Amino acid sequence: MTGPRLTPLAAALPATVPFVGPEAQERARARPFIARLGANELGFGPSPAAVAAIAGAAAEAWKYGDPQAHDLKQALAAHHGIPPETITVGEGIDGLLGYLVRLLVAPGDAVVTSDGAYPTFNFHVAGHGGQLFRVPYREDREDPAALLAEAGAVGARLIYLANPDNPMGTWWPAEAVSATIDAIPDGCLLALDEAYVEFAPEGIAPPVDTTDPRVIRLRTFSKAHGLAGMRIGYAIGHPDLIGAFDKVRNHFGVGRLAQAAALASLRDTAHLATTQDRVAAARDRIAAIARDNALSALPSAANFVAVDCGGDGSFARTVLNELIARDIFVRMPFVAPQDRCIRVSCGPAEELDRFAAALPGALTVASSGAG
Amino acid sequence: MTGPRLTPLAAALPATVPFVGPEAQERARARPFIARLGANELGFGPSPAAVAAIAGAAAEAWKYGDPQAHDLKQALAAHHGIPPETITVGEGIDGLLGYLVRLLVAPGDAVVTSDGAYPTFNFHVAGHGGQLFRVPYREDREDPAALLAEAGAVGARLIYLANPDNPMGTWWPAEAVSATIDAIPDGCLLALDEAYVEFAPEGIAPPVDTTDPRVIRLRTFSKAHGLAGMRIGYAIGHPDLIGAFDKVRNHFGVGRLAQAAALASLRDTAHLATTQDRVAAARDRIAAIARDNALSALPSAANFVAVDCGGDGSFARTVLNELIARDIFVRMPFVAPQDRCIRVSCGPAEELDRFAAALPGALTVASSGAG
Repeated sequence: MTGPRLTPLAAALPATVPFVGPEAQERARARPFIARLGANELGFGPSPAAVAAIAGAAAEAWKYGDPQAHDLKQALAAHHGIPPETITVGEGIDGLLGYLVRLLVAPGDAVVTSDGAYPTFNFHVAGHGGQLFRVPYREDREDPAALLAEAGAVGARLIYLANPDNPMGTWWPAEAVSATIDAIPDGCLLALDEAYVEFAPEGIAPPVDTTDPRVIRLRTFSKAHGLAGMRIGYAIGHPDLIGAFDKVRNHFGVGRLAQAAALASLRDTAHLATTQDRVAAARDRIAAIARDNALSALPSAANFVAVDCGGDGSFARTVLNELIARDIFVRMPFVAPQDRCIRVSCGPAEELDRFAAALPGALTVASSGAG
Repeated sequence: MTGPRLTPLAAALPATVPFVGPEAQERARARPFIARLGANELGFGPSPAAVAAIAGAAAEAWKYGDPQAHDLKQALAAHHGIPPETITVGEGIDGLLGYLVRLLVAPGDAVVTSDGAYPTFNFHVAGHGGQLFRVPYREDREDPAALLAEAGAVGARLIYLANPDNPMGTWWPAEAVSATIDAIPDGCLLALDEAYVEFAPEGIAPPVDTTDPRVIRLRTFSKAHGLAGMRIGYAIGHPDLIGAFDKVRNHFGVGRLAQAAALASLRDTAHLATTQDRVAAARDRIAAIARDNALSALPSAANFVAVDCGGDGSFARTVLNELIARDIFVRMPFVAPQDRCIRVSCGPAEELDRFAAALPGALTVASSGAG
């Protein structure tokens, strides 16, 4: 019996995965976390209207979701003041990035991102045989000028830029993003990941212009809307590009309850405002905890804060591991020098209290050189 | 401003989609259906335990689903008596078929299916540049001998076979499927779509043998478990092949509530038995409705019945259109001579009553040559 042969591309892919989930860590530790602050989820929870929409639609879970996500797209179109045909709804930004890479990146095609930026994007580029070029962060921000220069030099099909950035929480003002779009090389596209944009101050998102074929905007209900477990996000772009997603996407891939929850959440603007206030307060609290431990927190426009542990990557990794040993789930940047930080997601006060209680001990171990 | 260039493969793909959803039809008609009998959904609804699991987990929708789907895989492993590493969970069979094709089919590689079988599989093969070869149905069944012969002749990487079949509802006994697996050419894989297997009589599913690298089994919670709107299915196969899905899948693509619902449904074996009884009764009812209209119903091992309208494809299409005009959502096979039939999904008695009430008028129009 001979098994099937993977394609040469698939055979060459590593078995590594972008992220290990907290549940896997809990199983390995045989103990639950007491603070879930590592995946930039919204620990404050979704809109009660979204919860009610899910519960209310549960008995209709036997029906496939509308493959056109018509009602949600209409609502999003009205929300953004754009035509519905400039929106595609997908299985979170992860799913949409996968389709986007598949549409644009043939084996060997060049793609540019920042070294240390979102690894799931890199996973998709590798998965479709793209050649990934990385430029370093500059002062803990992604460096649009360097991204553009590299894209021009290598003839990139696609540039990835997150604004606000993950994992650092840093950002560029709208004018800088607009200038970046204006400088995109011919035939290249900017994938502008705005997963965290609802947490950012006014003035960081350029106006949405769906006549511009050089940029696609990626948004999600996983972060500010607190619906990560429903798997739903959307992309905004030129209708020619948005229409092309229909060539490759899993048409019935977005669930019925996910669509219902997203629609209810989009309408609950009061809850979003409350969420924004809670996240802002939690960012301040994380910064205060950092200060109390003689550490510095980076300014953040997202629902997480990069805390500079004041040493190198090895030091920060010890802090991270010691926090995990104290049942606090956090993560950290992958690449130096950003890996001097740990990344702490905003969450309810009691979870941040637990983080605050655990941090001094973790730092003591790291400072002792043990751990 | 120059837009991005699609890859040559993506640029060449048609914009057609596998299925138009009933919601799109309702919008076009500006009127809702009164019987939802076209998408082989489970109109009897999911397990109350699954509904309760969804409602109970709704407030936790802010957490990503476990990317390893650990608890569900453990339960499935116990259910099937196989190791968990022989199971991968994905966004329905549609999503899993997409990953499977991507793993095995490079541009130009040959794939074999039946002419008129599941179009979403064909969509994925085209989407990855595979070359699709089709063999005809034989007496309204997929023809394993012809599939094997064609696969050998063209050097196929992948063969698709559904048992029970969709859209005809016909089936092969386990021995025939086992013999097919035993005759798979070297280097080829049988994708055995068992979406409807829970509705079938005993003895059509070969024993699960996860040491056999020549077959992958595809199962879903969308049909017998009535959770189409949650988007969750799974594949069973040799651990080498199952492990390869981790190279390409959307790791966080299966929602938290979908996993919770599937787990609850899997445990509710009493509800599954009730569902099986209801589906069997509905099949009989559809066959009786056919007889009452001097039509014949094909024997079915699935949750739908192909009703032979007694004419050609044009005749059946008129019947279909007239049913839709009477607010009855049904579908029909795409390819002759199977397109002499309409396909009616099992559903609650009141919906079948509405179908029964609408059918004579639809047949009258078709017989008059109008419509």
